[in-house]
Amino acid sequence: MKKVLLIIMDGLGDRPNNSLNGKTALQAAYKPNLDYLASNGATGLMSPVSFGIRSGSDTSHLSILGYDPEKYYTGRGPFEAMGLGIGLEAGDIAFRANFGSVVDGKLVDRRAGRIKDTSELSKSLETSIDGVEFIIKSGVEHRAALVLRGINLSDKISETDPHNTDTEPLFTKPLKKEGEFTASVINKFIERSRRILNEHPVNLKRIELGELPANEIMLRGAGKIPEMPSFSEKYGMNAACISGTPLIRGIAKLAGLDIINVDGMTGRTDTNYENVINSAISSLKNYEFVLVNIKGTDIAGHDKKPELKKSVIERVDRAMEPLKKILGDTLVVITGDHSTPCSYGDHTGDPVPVLFSTEGILYDYVNSFDELGVSSGFYKIKSTDLMPIVLSYSERAEKYGA
Amino acid sequence: MKKVLLIIMDGLGDRPNNSLNGKTALQAAYKPNLDYLASNGATGLMSPVSFGIRSGSDTSHLSILGYDPEKYYTGRGPFEAMGLGIGLEAGDIAFRANFGSVVDGKLVDRRAGRIKDTSELSKSLETSIDGVEFIIKSGVEHRAALVLRGINLSDKISETDPHNTDTEPLFTKPLKKEGEFTASVINKFIERSRRILNEHPVNLKRIELGELPANEIMLRGAGKIPEMPSFSEKYGMNAACISGTPLIRGIAKLAGLDIINVDGMTGRTDTNYENVINSAISSLKNYEFVLVNIKGTDIAGHDKKPELKKSVIERVDRAMEPLKKILGDTLVVITGDHSTPCSYGDHTGDPVPVLFSTEGILYDYVNSFDELGVSSGFYKIKSTDLMPIVLSYSERAEKYGA
Repeated sequence: MKKVLLIIMDGLGDRPNNSLNGKTALQAAYKPNLDYLASNGATGLMSPVSFGIRSGSDTSHLSILGYDPEKYYTGRGPFEAMGLGIGLEAGDIAFRANFGSVVDGKLVDRRAGRIKDTSELSKSLETSIDGVEFIIKSGVEHRAALVLRGINLSDKISETDPHNTDTEPLFTKPLKKEGEFTASVINKFIERSRRILNEHPVNLKRIELGELPANEIMLRGAGKIPEMPSFSEKYGMNAACISGTPLIRGIAKLAGLDIINVDGMTGRTDTNYENVINSAISSLKNYEFVLVNIKGTDIAGHDKKPELKKSVIERVDRAMEPLKKILGDTLVVITGDHSTPCSYGDHTGDPVPVLFSTEGILYDYVNSFDELGVSSGFYKIKSTDLMPIVLSYSERAEKYGA
Repeated sequence: MKKVLLIIMDGLGDRPNNSLNGKTALQAAYKPNLDYLASNGATGLMSPVSFGIRSGSDTSHLSILGYDPEKYYTGRGPFEAMGLGIGLEAGDIAFRANFGSVVDGKLVDRRAGRIKDTSELSKSLETSIDGVEFIIKSGVEHRAALVLRGINLSDKISETDPHNTDTEPLFTKPLKKEGEFTASVINKFIERSRRILNEHPVNLKRIELGELPANEIMLRGAGKIPEMPSFSEKYGMNAACISGTPLIRGIAKLAGLDIINVDGMTGRTDTNYENVINSAISSLKNYEFVLVNIKGTDIAGHDKKPELKKSVIERVDRAMEPLKKILGDTLVVITGDHSTPCSYGDHTGDPVPVLFSTEGILYDYVNSFDELGVSSGFYKIKSTDLMPIVLSYSERAEKYGA
C-alpha cells in the first residue's frame, strides 16, 4: 500500500490568453517538475462534478473526495459560512447574509452603498434568542454569513432578501410546519437587528457623511450543515488537509480530516510554496492521505492576470522538485478543482488536467502537463471517478469479484 | 446486420516489465493481426466495471455483457461454484468450501495439509437433508464449492470458517429470521460430514501416512444464484460461449449462452489457439454472437511471467490471421476483462485496450493494439458501455428517437 498526496491547484484550468501568445497559463509556464510527473504517470482530463458543470471549489472538492454534492452540498449558506471561517456543527443552520439600506421603510440599496467593512456591525448583532445562538461573521463589502445553533432548527423557511429595491424589507415565513420555530426566532432576530443597526455609531456616522446606512440584514441560501461519513471510514486512510482557504478547511473538517497549518501559507498568491510542499511531504509520515489546496492559480484567474497565473504555476513547480523522490512509496495526484480562465475571470465548465504518478505505474505518452498535452492521456473522467483510481494506484482497492 | 465475435483476453492489461525493456506484454509482442484489426478499427481504453475498479473476471464479464454487477453479482460462493462447473439454478445457495484439519477438537490447518485431491471426499458428502439437496464439487487442493438446492433457502447465515487455527470448528447461525431453516439444515450437514470424513478411507490412509486428515468442511461467501434476463432476450441475438474456464462458462450459462467445447482448449497457456479461433469463426454460422474467453494471458500475469504473457499474445495473434477474412459480415471486438500486470501478479484497476473492427467502420489513427497505442483512439469507456457500441457497429441498434 502506498501513501497518497493529492495536490489540487485551485482554478488551474485556463483558456488561450492573448498576452501569452494564445497559450493557457499551464502551456506557457516553465514547469519541468510537473512535466516529469506527467511523463512518469497516467494522465488525462477531469470534468469537475460532471461534464460542463461550472462547479465551485466546494462542490468540486466534495466530489473529488467522493462525497456526492447532490447529497452533501446543502446550499451556499453553510459553505459560505465555512468560507468565512465559522466553525460549523451538525444541526447548524447557515445563511448568506447581505447588509442593505432601508430609508423611509423602503429598501433602497441591496449592497448598503458598497460599504467596505461590516465587522463591527456584525459583532453587534450576535445574540441568543429562545435558546438559539446567532453567530454572524462579515465577509467582503456588504456580505456576511449567519449561523443559527440550537435544537430543533430547520432550513424550511423563506428568504428575507426581496432581490429588489423600492420595496419593504421582508420577514421570513416557515415553508413547512417544521420551520415554524426557526422562522419565529429569526423574525425576532431581524426586529432586534433593525433596532441595533439604526442606532449603531457606524451607521449614524455614515448618515452624517451622506452615505447609505447598513441597517437591514437580509438572509438567503438557508442550509443545514451536512452530516458526512468520515474520509477515514470511507477509505481506511487517516488523512490531513493543508489549505490557506477557510472554505476548503471547512470541507476538510466536515470529512474528518485533520488541518495542518503551514508557515507562510496565506491563501494568496504570495504563499510560500516550498513550505507547503515540504510540509505535505513530512505530513506523509503521520498520515496516509494528504490533501493540499493551492489557491493562487484561482486568484490569478479571477483577477484576469495570465502572467500572474503562469508565475504561480512556475513557483509551485519549483517547490515540487522533492516530489520526485517520494514516488517509490507514494502516489502523487495533481489536478485542479475547476477552470478559472484568465480570459473569463470566473469558473467555467472546462475539463482540467489530472496526473497520477508513482513508481511502476503504467505511464501514457503524455510528457507535458497542460490542458492539451494530457488530452491524449489515459483518462477522460469526472471528479467522482478520482478516488476509485486513487485507491487502485495506491494498492488500497479491494478486488471486486474473483 | 452483422454477426459479432467478442474475444476477451483475460487479464490482458499490463504494466512496464523490466525484462521486456520497460514494455507491457502487448507492447513487446509481435502481433501483426491485432495491429491490422486496430488499424482497420475504432479503438480505445475500457475500464472494467468502472474507473479504478479492480474487477474480477466474474464482475467484469457480467458488466461487459450488460449485466450490472451491483445487481447480479451475488457474492463469491455462486461464482466459485460455477467456476467448478456446478450447474446452478435460480434459488440455489452456494458457498466456497475449504477442507481443513481438526485434531483433538481444534482446527490445526485451514488447508488440510495442502491435500492434492478431495474429489472422493466431496462425493461422499453429497446428500439430502430435510428436502434440501447438497451438491459439492472439489476444486484445486483443499478448495471446493457447496450448493444447496431446495425451497425457502436463504443466504442470511454466518460463515463457518474461523479464519484462524487453534480454535474450535464452527457451526453456522442465522443472520436474520429468514436464515433459520437454512442454518439448521447446514448444521445437520456439518455434523454428518464430520462423522463421514473422520471414518473415510482417504483420511484413515492420510493419518496412517502421518498426514493431516481433511476432516472438516468450512463454508463462506454464501450467495444466491442471480436470476438474469437471457442475453438473447436483451439483445435479440442467439449466442454461444467458448471458454476453457468453468467460471466464464458458468456466467455464460446464467446469461443463456450455449457452451461450445473446443478440442485442445485447456484453460491453460498451452491451449490450441488455432482451434479456438477457427471454432469461433465456424460457430458464427449458427450463432449471431460468439463470446470467446482466452485465459492464458491472465495466468501469465498471476504467475508474474512477462515473457509467457508475450508469447501467449503472439500465439493468439497468429491464430487470428483468419479474422481478417470475416470482417465483411462480422464485427470483431477484442479486449481484456481487466489488467493482470506481471509486475503485480494480480488484478489492477488499470484500463484495458479495446478494438472494434469491421468493414466500413470509421477507423481512428491507431495502428498498434496496446495500452499506449490505443490511448489516442476514439473511446475512453467503461465496460458497461461496450454492448451498446457493439449493437451500433453491428447494425443492430434501434434508433432512439426520430
